[in-house]
Amino acid sequence: MTEADFLAALKALPLHAGALGLTDDAARLGDWVLTTDTMVEGVHFLPADPPVDIAWKLVAVNLSDLAAKGAVPEAVLLSYPLADDAWDRGFVAGLGEALAVMGVTLIGGDTVSLPSGAPRVLGLTAIGRAGSATPARGGACAGDRLYVTGTIGDAGAGLALASGARGAGDLSQEHRAFLVNAYRRPTPRSSEGIALAPLVAAMMDVSDGLLIDAARLAAASGLSVTIDLAAVPLSAAYRAYAGEDRAARLAAATAGDDYQLLFAAPASAAIPVPATAIGAFETGTGLRLTDGDVVVGVPSRLGFEHG
Amino acid sequence: MTEADFLAALKALPLHAGALGLTDDAARLGDWVLTTDTMVEGVHFLPADPPVDIAWKLVAVNLSDLAAKGAVPEAVLLSYPLADDAWDRGFVAGLGEALAVMGVTLIGGDTVSLPSGAPRVLGLTAIGRAGSATPARGGACAGDRLYVTGTIGDAGAGLALASGARGAGDLSQEHRAFLVNAYRRPTPRSSEGIALAPLVAAMMDVSDGLLIDAARLAAASGLSVTIDLAAVPLSAAYRAYAGEDRAARLAAATAGDDYQLLFAAPASAAIPVPATAIGAFETGTGLRLTDGDVVVGVPSRLGFEHG
Repeated sequence: MTEADFLAALKALPLHAGALGLTDDAARLGDWVLTTDTMVEGVHFLPADPPVDIAWKLVAVNLSDLAAKGAVPEAVLLSYPLADDAWDRGFVAGLGEALAVMGVTLIGGDTVSLPSGAPRVLGLTAIGRAGSATPARGGACAGDRLYVTGTIGDAGAGLALASGARGAGDLSQEHRAFLVNAYRRPTPRSSEGIALAPLVAAMMDVSDGLLIDAARLAAASGLSVTIDLAAVPLSAAYRAYAGEDRAARLAAATAGDDYQLLFAAPASAAIPVPATAIGAFETGTGLRLTDGDVVVGVPSRLGFEHG
Repeated sequence: MTEADFLAALKALPLHAGALGLTDDAARLGDWVLTTDTMVEGVHFLPADPPVDIAWKLVAVNLSDLAAKGAVPEAVLLSYPLADDAWDRGFVAGLGEALAVMGVTLIGGDTVSLPSGAPRVLGLTAIGRAGSATPARGGACAGDRLYVTGTIGDAGAGLALASGARGAGDLSQEHRAFLVNAYRRPTPRSSEGIALAPLVAAMMDVSDGLLIDAARLAAASGLSVTIDLAAVPLSAAYRAYAGEDRAARLAAATAGDDYQLLFAAPASAAIPVPATAIGAFETGTGLRLTDGDVVVGVPSRLGFEHG
């Protein structure tokens, strides 16, 4: 089944009121926000990625879902396949570092054995304390602006470099390290999410790609969204890696793994964290692209269809 | 790493107060009890097991951990690897049946793709509402009796029959079906756990084997436990399958996958649910076995070392 077909089938089952119709990345249970994200070797990370970084990323991608709800990270439950000593030790070190830096604790878990040679499958469930407001995906209004925190495309470039899909060319060591670090060690935007939650109309994190996630935000809100590629924020490292022409901007906007916050807010709203206005919502459906004043065709692939 | 080494390493990380030192199957967060259990194809279930039953068992084994805490099942989060249509449809059907029968709802989850040919890894996190008391593993007192609900060994026999490790011989169709069903469709003892929680000294579910789990209960309580094999409750189907001599009783008591509740209570306590007294706690350490009046050697293998 496709993810969409599977989700449609699940929606016919007994759902919790806090499941939000299974349309969101996180659920609401009393004062808590819950999310679960699984990472698979060879799909979500490279076999050669250091285990210390994989542990970090597993915590980060879950806390990114909590950040989009404005929740304060509280605890995580780990599902872990025991492997060789060196890998396990590296994973525990990275997990400890992530917990300490991100201000969250381990509350439980489960260890399993995998058949020999099977790819690692790592699961985490994260629990956060809900703030005064829990933004949904579907709250944007016509006329709202679309904003994104940070820069876009760095992790996609880092993956291409780390996997060897593309050589570093004359990229500086610093720029290469910045991009690979963005892929391996994303930072969940927890404090930004907590600050934004009370005033945004809709919010989600960018995990599958800016364009596909923006299209989902618009669809959940029953609106169309227009994104100006020229406004998409690019890092100096990304520009050094790929340039900043339209092709480079489209590549950044469809790359995924950014873990920035994407949100809708009225044009009059004062945004309390660094963020870039990249588009606007209108009545209608679908995604439109511009590059400054020029209307640009929408690519057939907007990002990862599921992750 | 072994599970014990890995747990020891995790215990040095930032732990939540509700993690109970990672010594238990479930955690406590505010009014909620949390647990996560993962099932791996070829390890926790057979590739030929029907997906409708695997979904059932995934919910059941998690709710069994909640039952041991006397928690009322509230919701589950699913981590699911998308596969072929028929398997996915069977899984959704079994999940729906389990949720409806066990009185719990789906609140969220995540779907992933696995590399071609990789064994399925299915994760569930279950959340229950804590009752007035949340029994730990470590509360038994010297002189307390050890009790178990239901019958022991049925699932182990069912696995041997389902896997073809042992033929059915002259076992009746009814007995064979009962045993295979015990393996594929365990029933979490939720109502029993809720009734028992306020009056037991310690409680856990039997997942890895009666002997190994009883030894864990005793160790967590700083006591020794003596189990009378002659008192271990066996079903009519199990007796028809394996007999009821000492070897058959030892096989039942080390087989695992029973998902019954194992608990300590004072000899004077009135037990409000059907349960069998099978032993007693004393000062000291370790596990002792008797068969009626005869002291029996403790086997080297007490159950599954991790699951």
